Amino acid sequence: MKAETITGDSEQQGAREVELTERVTRSFEGASDPRLKAILTSLTRHLHAFVREVRLTEDEWNAGIRFLTDVGHTTDDKRQEFILLSDTLGVSMQVITVNNRAYRDATEATVFGPFFVDGAPQIPLGGDMAAGATGEPCWVEGTVRDTDGNPVPGARIEVWEADEDGMYDVQYDDDRTAARAHLFSAADGGFRFWGITPTPYPIPDDGPVGGMLARAGRSPMRASHLHFMVSSPGLRTLVTHIFVNGDPLLSTDSVFGVKESLIKDFVRQDPGTATPDGRTIAGTWARVSFDIVLAPVGIG
Amino acid sequence: MKAETITGDSEQQGAREVELTERVTRSFEGASDPRLKAILTSLTRHLHAFVREVRLTEDEWNAGIRFLTDVGHTTDDKRQEFILLSDTLGVSMQVITVNNRAYRDATEATVFGPFFVDGAPQIPLGGDMAAGATGEPCWVEGTVRDTDGNPVPGARIEVWEADEDGMYDVQYDDDRTAARAHLFSAADGGFRFWGITPTPYPIPDDGPVGGMLARAGRSPMRASHLHFMVSSPGLRTLVTHIFVNGDPLLSTDSVFGVKESLIKDFVRQDPGTATPDGRTIAGTWARVSFDIVLAPVGIG
Repeated sequence: MKAETITGDSEQQGAREVELTERVTRSFEGASDPRLKAILTSLTRHLHAFVREVRLTEDEWNAGIRFLTDVGHTTDDKRQEFILLSDTLGVSMQVITVNNRAYRDATEATVFGPFFVDGAPQIPLGGDMAAGATGEPCWVEGTVRDTDGNPVPGARIEVWEADEDGMYDVQYDDDRTAARAHLFSAADGGFRFWGITPTPYPIPDDGPVGGMLARAGRSPMRASHLHFMVSSPGLRTLVTHIFVNGDPLLSTDSVFGVKESLIKDFVRQDPGTATPDGRTIAGTWARVSFDIVLAPVGIG
Repeated sequence: MKAETITGDSEQQGAREVELTERVTRSFEGASDPRLKAILTSLTRHLHAFVREVRLTEDEWNAGIRFLTDVGHTTDDKRQEFILLSDTLGVSMQVITVNNRAYRDATEATVFGPFFVDGAPQIPLGGDMAAGATGEPCWVEGTVRDTDGNPVPGARIEVWEADEDGMYDVQYDDDRTAARAHLFSAADGGFRFWGITPTPYPIPDDGPVGGMLARAGRSPMRASHLHFMVSSPGLRTLVTHIFVNGDPLLSTDSVFGVKESLIKDFVRQDPGTATPDGRTIAGTWARVSFDIVLAPVGIG
């Protein structure tokens, strides 16, 4: 053994590392659920490859254990720090991407986020989903079509957003319902409603994930956006946002939700400009158009 | 867009997935600590590759978030479920492997485990580290040498192990100190002491990690082992175990700590067989030899 060269040591070292990974993946061979086996095997291979690639030190491993412990202890019924961690590493967005396969010109999906509420009030076409939420009024209009170009009438369109202070209604203590609603597309697939011009807000950054972002030199801010969830029988449900063209936060969105195709022109209108529905507005308002294309179901 | 072929859709899908990963890794470019940047970049690439490779569904992602939340809530001052998770995925052992590079015939390292206690009592050469812990007496002897074959006198040898009920002293409520001690190698590098023949025990399996092992068809049992930590100035500190040849659990050790080179013959002695030091033992006893080779410091 003493005659071994440094090359021999390196070969032995590499063999030990590879053999260990193989031993761990073999340990899952007895799993009765083949999907669980596939997931644990792939996860093990990638975690081991990470450790080998960066030559993770024991101190760094300890720091990782402490970080995950802190994430676990920050998580409770109201705060989900593991989802924030997944979001800020782009893992959530990669899961969304994998599960909403590109199909012709179907509108791209993005993250769901934690602020959707089931059972939001219905508004008529042209109604006001802001319902008292503060912010610049914004007229939103568009059509819902399928990927053959046919209008989709009666599509259920859920919309929700933060107010101009960057707060969703559920973040207030007073049980208000505001800046969230649902409506249905018209016979020609068209829809239109009043909302408010989106403004940016930070993800919760007072926990370990916020600490990670700070050390990584990253902003906790989300780019300004308006949430949509659009569904119709036989078509793939679309969960997405539209973003505000020109928002300086587009390129640094803390959860990587921005897609080029979802950036829209929110066109500011001078005070006194006539509104599409004759509503009287004292100050500025904005308008934006968003044409939605739904993929068929069953394409992943 | 409607003219796109399925091939076009697949190319677009692949491009979206790759682009997302690149966008996330670019977000770490502003990290002031280059090591943090390297770690987060590699971790992101491997987590994304895992999601893409298994085509992780949103339900599976949700199950993963729930699992990690459960691991976090199981962890407290006395129970470290994240370390158990790292151990059972072989990540801890890979970190150990990476940080104890193969060097000539240096003895291999294995996991440290949670049961070491600083300040264990000193015993003389030939002393009894069992100190009342139940189990079959076992005579352990060997030498400490460096990789040039020179004896290492005065090496500090910490040893600790579970009793025959699979319990370490610190797992009892009575503040006992037993089956742990330290001694120093002699002028010729030799060492010898009485301990107990190692027996197997399970890692804590009443939490989410235990649930994962059960679903994966894996045993929570650790192969029988005796812990060593050996240190001497100028030499790399060795943290390792020796395992019992013939133990049926060797191939399924729940934390992947077993290395072929660390499996030793614990030779059972009939009642009445003379002991090396004249000790009188009513029943069977065992003896094992373990020659330790320490690498120089500074080789990783």
